Formats: sequence, C-alpha cells, structure tokens
Amino acid sequence: MSGARLIGVGVGPGDPELLTLKAVRALAGADVVAYFAKAGNDSNARRIAAGHLRAGVEELPLLYPVTTELPRHAPAYCCAIRDFHDAAAARVSGHLDAGRSVAVICEGDPLFYGSYMHLHVRLAARYPAEIVPGVTGMSGCWSSVGTPIAQGDDVFVVLPATLTEDELARRFADADAAVVMKLGRHLDKVRRALDRAGRLQRALYVERATTAEAVAMPLADKRDGAAPYFSIVLVPGWEARP
Amino acid sequence: MSGARLIGVGVGPGDPELLTLKAVRALAGADVVAYFAKAGNDSNARRIAAGHLRAGVEELPLLYPVTTELPRHAPAYCCAIRDFHDAAAARVSGHLDAGRSVAVICEGDPLFYGSYMHLHVRLAARYPAEIVPGVTGMSGCWSSVGTPIAQGDDVFVVLPATLTEDELARRFADADAAVVMKLGRHLDKVRRALDRAGRLQRALYVERATTAEAVAMPLADKRDGAAPYFSIVLVPGWEARP
Repeated sequence: MSGARLIGVGVGPGDPELLTLKAVRALAGADVVAYFAKAGNDSNARRIAAGHLRAGVEELPLLYPVTTELPRHAPAYCCAIRDFHDAAAARVSGHLDAGRSVAVICEGDPLFYGSYMHLHVRLAARYPAEIVPGVTGMSGCWSSVGTPIAQGDDVFVVLPATLTEDELARRFADADAAVVMKLGRHLDKVRRALDRAGRLQRALYVERATTAEAVAMPLADKRDGAAPYFSIVLVPGWEARP
Repeated sequence: MSGARLIGVGVGPGDPELLTLKAVRALAGADVVAYFAKAGNDSNARRIAAGHLRAGVEELPLLYPVTTELPRHAPAYCCAIRDFHDAAAARVSGHLDAGRSVAVICEGDPLFYGSYMHLHVRLAARYPAEIVPGVTGMSGCWSSVGTPIAQGDDVFVVLPATLTEDELARRFADADAAVVMKLGRHLDKVRRALDRAGRLQRALYVERATTAEAVAMPLADKRDGAAPYFSIVLVPGWEARP
C-alpha cells in the first residue's frame, strides 16, 4: 500500500495516447482506481485508461443512480444526486482510511466540469490530495479538426446549451470565440442563436473527437437535431488573423 | 527522414511530466524540432520538452525580433511581427519541402492562444498537418491550487487583462467562472474590476504553476502590482456546490 492519498487523474478527451506521463505514473502507483459511470454503461474514463491499469488493481466503480424519470431541477433529482455523491465519497474515504491511495479517473481535465470535483470538495480537506490535469475534451475537438480557436486578445467563452436562445444569442455576439457543451436536444436552438448572432457560418459541429468514431462538419451542414453526449459546437475566434 | 509532416505539439503548462504520450512519440519521431523564443531568452517550450528531444535532432529556433520600442498596435509593430511569422513559416516549409517532418513545440495547447497557430494558418493547407493537443496553462494553474473552476451549467470565460476596467467588470459580473491572462502591468486594474463586480474575494493569483517556482495566493492578499508573463487570475465558479 502506498499511503492514504486522493488523486484526481484527467485521462484526456478519448485517445489513450493523450494521457500524460504523470497520469500513467499515477495509475501505475495507485492502490485503487475509481471512476463514475452510469449503471449499465461502461465508464468512458476507464475505457480510455484501460491500457494503463495495473494488472489486478482494485477497481471501484461508482454507478450513478438511474434518474431519467426525474426533472433535472426537481428537488428529488438534486437530493438523489447529492446522496449518491455523499455515498461515493464515503466509499472512497473507506479506502483512504485504510491507508490506500485512490486514483479517481475522469475524462478531460478533473477540475474543469469534471465528475471528480464532487469527490474533491467532499474529501480534499481531509486527506492528502493531488490533481493530475488532463487535456480537455474541447481541446481534443479543435485539435482534431485543426481549427485555431482563440488568439491574442480574444475573449473565449464556454456555454452550456441549456441557456435560453436569447441568452445564447447575446453571449455569442459578446465573445470572439465560443464552445457550446451539453448539446443533447438543444442543437436546433444553438443553431438559431448562432444565426441571430451572425456566427453560424463559422461554427463547427464535432463529436467523439480523437477517437475512431469522430465526426466533424460545419454546423450549418448538419441537418438533423441529434447530438450525443460527447459532442460540442466550436465557434472559432481569431477573425483578424494575418 | 520520416516524410513531410507539420506537427503542432503541445507540451503542457510547465511540468515535463505533463507531456502526453502522443507528444513524447511525436518528438521521438520528428526530423526537426522547432520552437519560438525571444531573442536572448531560452525557449520555455524547449525547456519543458528537453528531456524528450532525440539526441542529435535538428533544432530550429525561431527568434522573435526585439520590438519593445514599438507600440503594440502600431502598424510598424504589426508589420514586423507579420513579416517575422512569414519568414518563420518559410524556414519551416524549407524542411517540409525537403521531405522532413517538423514538430513545432508550444507551451500549453497549440490551438488555444498558442504561438504555433501563426505557422498553422500559413502551412497547414499546403502540407500534411497534425495537432497534438496539450494540457493548457490555465488547467495547470487551477490543478496546482486544487480549485474546481467550473461545473454543471456554469458559463466560463477567458479574458485578456488588456480590456478596459469597465469591460472587465461587466464581464466578471456576466460569467460564473473566469480566467484572466496577460496580466503584466494590468494587475491593479483587474483587482479593481473584480472588486466592482463583487468577485474579488473568490479570486486567486497563480504564477508558474506546476513548476518548482510556483506561487499562489488570494488576489486580495497580493500587495504589489507586478505579474510575470506566466501568471493568471482565477475566479472559480460552481458557487452552488453541495
């Protein structure tokens, strides 16, 4: 055993080659490797990191409860998710109390919209904790399409597609470069908001970047409104490029 | 020789362990390794990647002209920089035309405010080109201080400190989470703008994160107005955390 230690490990956007050397070393040294996943689904972070897990390492899957029947902002949903994160933190702290190091793997970068944050805020004050930053999903997207996203004095913004169409249009017009996440069933609204802000022609739709299933196209050419979880819209800045 | 190929390689925020496996492989296979630097200064990207350069690899330093005597938005400054980037691209294309692969190393992530972009827009349409994304400098900063930066439906924004105080204050009040770059001699202005937006108490000052010279403190506690190039201000979001 290597001693109580909580390590949030970013495993990057999808390509296992985009793990950092530090992430590989953290996985090689950890007593326990934990990850969030939806019940019945593989953990995407585990799939990315699979080639670097130590043979026989103890794995701790933290399986989200099925909450699809609850409205996302309903008190019952919030309670269910909070209770789940409390219980997940208790399971991790059980290992830490026993003197084990726990690497929590997380897609992208742990402290940038990452699921690991829910454990970090519950445990980092009580145990030695360390973060191994990772390549974000959005970096994977703009890199895979070779599109410079922001330069110089550009203002860059990350927006959730859950905002209203008016809010999205206002914010697209107020930034040089933008990324829209959580597209889900909001893709048509995002397209309309970009059109109102005069930015639709620059926008790109990218899904599952850096993996074998990657898809990329101008958003204006995407006819359907379907967008899986690992998809984003890029609005490149640097309009004054030489 | 491995064939004409332009590769923009992100080497991350400073810790050499934060190179990705893909970056290490790209450096091992490249015929030429190029990097930008100020004349008379070491290249920071080269320092980060030094342990992974192939013995005897051909190095191509691209040294910025000294332009400190010119105002930054003066036509003469813009011309000097544009001519420099044109000449740098010509030197890289000389190697590509000779059938060599050229890895251009770049701190952080190449297409996110990276110097590599100036070569990419000049060369990527004419030669096979590939990007190896990297961990950004800002990820290095919030990870080194263990501060969750954004979660859920947070709006996250990156701002250059060169904006006016009014613009900064307006944008701080309009986002859940923010990062301010290019602090230089603008630190006092950024502090005042955060205070006006009611966000100063949450703000952190971080410099040279992930290196041995790292410094971090609440911005409100930083008494002087001096901020080196590799410093940023973080304004963490996720205020509704459980």
